[in-house]
Amino acid sequence: MTMAQDRFKFVFTANEAATEGVTEPIRLPNLIRKAMSLARAPISKYKVGAVGRTSSGRVYLGVNVDFPGLPLHHSIHAEQFLVTNLALNSEKDLCELAVAVSVDGKEFGTPCGYCRQFLMEMSNALDIKILSKPKHETGSFSTLRLLLPNVLPKGSPFLLEKRDNCLTLLGPAEEICSSDCSHLKCKALAAANNSFSPYTESPSGVALLDNDGKWYYGWYIDSVASNPSLGPVQAALVDFVTRSRGKRFNKIVRAVLVEKNNAIVSQERTAKMILDTIAAPNCDFKVFHCSVDGAKRLKYLRDTLVIDTSVGDYAGLHY
Amino acid sequence: MTMAQDRFKFVFTANEAATEGVTEPIRLPNLIRKAMSLARAPISKYKVGAVGRTSSGRVYLGVNVDFPGLPLHHSIHAEQFLVTNLALNSEKDLCELAVAVSVDGKEFGTPCGYCRQFLMEMSNALDIKILSKPKHETGSFSTLRLLLPNVLPKGSPFLLEKRDNCLTLLGPAEEICSSDCSHLKCKALAAANNSFSPYTESPSGVALLDNDGKWYYGWYIDSVASNPSLGPVQAALVDFVTRSRGKRFNKIVRAVLVEKNNAIVSQERTAKMILDTIAAPNCDFKVFHCSVDGAKRLKYLRDTLVIDTSVGDYAGLHY
Ligand SMILES: [Zn+2]
Ligand SMILES: [Zn+2]
Ligand SMILES: [Zn+2]
Ligand SMILES: [Zn+2]
Repeated sequence: MTMAQDRFKFVFTANEAATEGVTEPIRLPNLIRKAMSLARAPISKYKVGAVGRTSSGRVYLGVNVDFPGLPLHHSIHAEQFLVTNLALNSEKDLCELAVAVSVDGKEFGTPCGYCRQFLMEMSNALDIKILSKPKHETGSFSTLRLLLPNVLPKGSPFLLEKRDNCLTLLGPAEEICSSDCSHLKCKALAAANNSFSPYTESPSGVALLDNDGKWYYGWYIDSVASNPSLGPVQAALVDFVTRSRGKRFNKIVRAVLVEKNNAIVSQERTAKMILDTIAAPNCDFKVFHCSVDGAKRLKYLRDTLVIDTSVGDYAGLHY
Repeated sequence: MTMAQDRFKFVFTANEAATEGVTEPIRLPNLIRKAMSLARAPISKYKVGAVGRTSSGRVYLGVNVDFPGLPLHHSIHAEQFLVTNLALNSEKDLCELAVAVSVDGKEFGTPCGYCRQFLMEMSNALDIKILSKPKHETGSFSTLRLLLPNVLPKGSPFLLEKRDNCLTLLGPAEEICSSDCSHLKCKALAAANNSFSPYTESPSGVALLDNDGKWYYGWYIDSVASNPSLGPVQAALVDFVTRSRGKRFNKIVRAVLVEKNNAIVSQERTAKMILDTIAAPNCDFKVFHCSVDGAKRLKYLRDTLVIDTSVGDYAGLHY
């Protein structure tokens, strides 16, 4: 791998992180300038970086992303980016987090209120160690205070915990596809099946294709506080930013959204608006609808959850 | 005024509040059930109410509003609603705030992270007394901890402080209007002139007309954390909810957005999407562009701010 390629790296093994000077959590700041250089903040002009370590030992970067021409509630904060990146990489937790709060990357502090609220969907939210570090000092870790408790339905997994929404595509003559097929709609369906939507039961996923035929995907993430929820296009853009090695969004030439028919939260119009604004001028955008496969869902629940079958109240699981 | 009309009251004089049992700040909870009954939460089904008192002695209600068919980042939280209502009524501050955190309206606690971040734009954010009250107890007030400091440009007024963005409409043959003219676009311009946009310099305003010819307006509010920013349609809907006496959004038949030409943040597509989703099916939506009137701006700055004219660096004011 050349140095030029390395510049776009968002995921570091423990060994790679050590090479960058991150030999222990308190040294997470050694990767902050790399993170900040990767931010895409043409509106705010304020490049924010975050560095986090998981129990797997890997170290992840997060950056802020905003979109000229779109209102600011479409933006992605660095901490949201980082957590979404963890989800895309099947990480189970976040152990330590360092967020730069000065433009020189030398001071670290707690996430903004919006991000703190978003982080609350993780099972270990209150155990995440957040770096607090003034300039010229080593700093120390402390934990978040509870904001709004999540109110997950009983039996529903937390964000970053494994789930399968058991969704299948609707419509006539669906092809039988293998799990590694190349249909963009099947990637979007796979994303929707990972979607975290315990509150609105409106899982959705987006898959993107770039001008070189490479695909990216991401899934919708609910927040109990509504507004901090992350849209499926934003989640797929996290995948794009982390793996496209610096490509601009206007290299996105195809996009597919999969969402439930008649979901109370529909992403269709917003997804189209975002892509119309940032993707290639003639970017092809398609929407496919899906629904829960009841039989698959029942088997999934039987296989993964401890259920009191004497009651048989599967509906109580809110899926 | 009949009882039926009273049910939709969002603003109480000190005397009216006392009649409702709010004889002192610790009794703000006596208005919480009225607030909660006015929430419009078809998605979340979770009706949130907030009651706040200003230094004028008046007491305001806030409610949450969400929109079926639209992603959740378009929602309005009860605290955001309340602060926007303060702005619409030219209040200068918020002294005490009580937010219900249980569905029976008997427990009160701190705002969610998203709202805490939004509140940070007020000059007295750290002095606002927030009620903490378990069930069956009187409760007590405490203040917010700082999340992200606002980074207002020097000389720029805080949220709820008086401002005039000195915007005028662009385009040929503009009518000369009095300040109380009935043009919807002039109402939207007036709103844009109140808009709080110190970070993105993209002020905007929306005016709405209902089926009875009554108008409403509201203006865009920036948040330093981007995503908690409140869109101009949402702000106008706060006006609508507080003054339309229970009307549904599909009674909105005309809407005008005024925003700057080539602003880095444009509300046009999002405003159209929201109105297409919630307003009357054939709601007329128009956009007018505006720009800063330099001469008016200069006079405004001279009249309202203490400026070192020996330097003459008006550009440094970021307007
Ligand atoms: Zn944040
Ligand atoms: Zn396929
Ligand atoms: Zn809130
Ligand atoms: Zn007029």
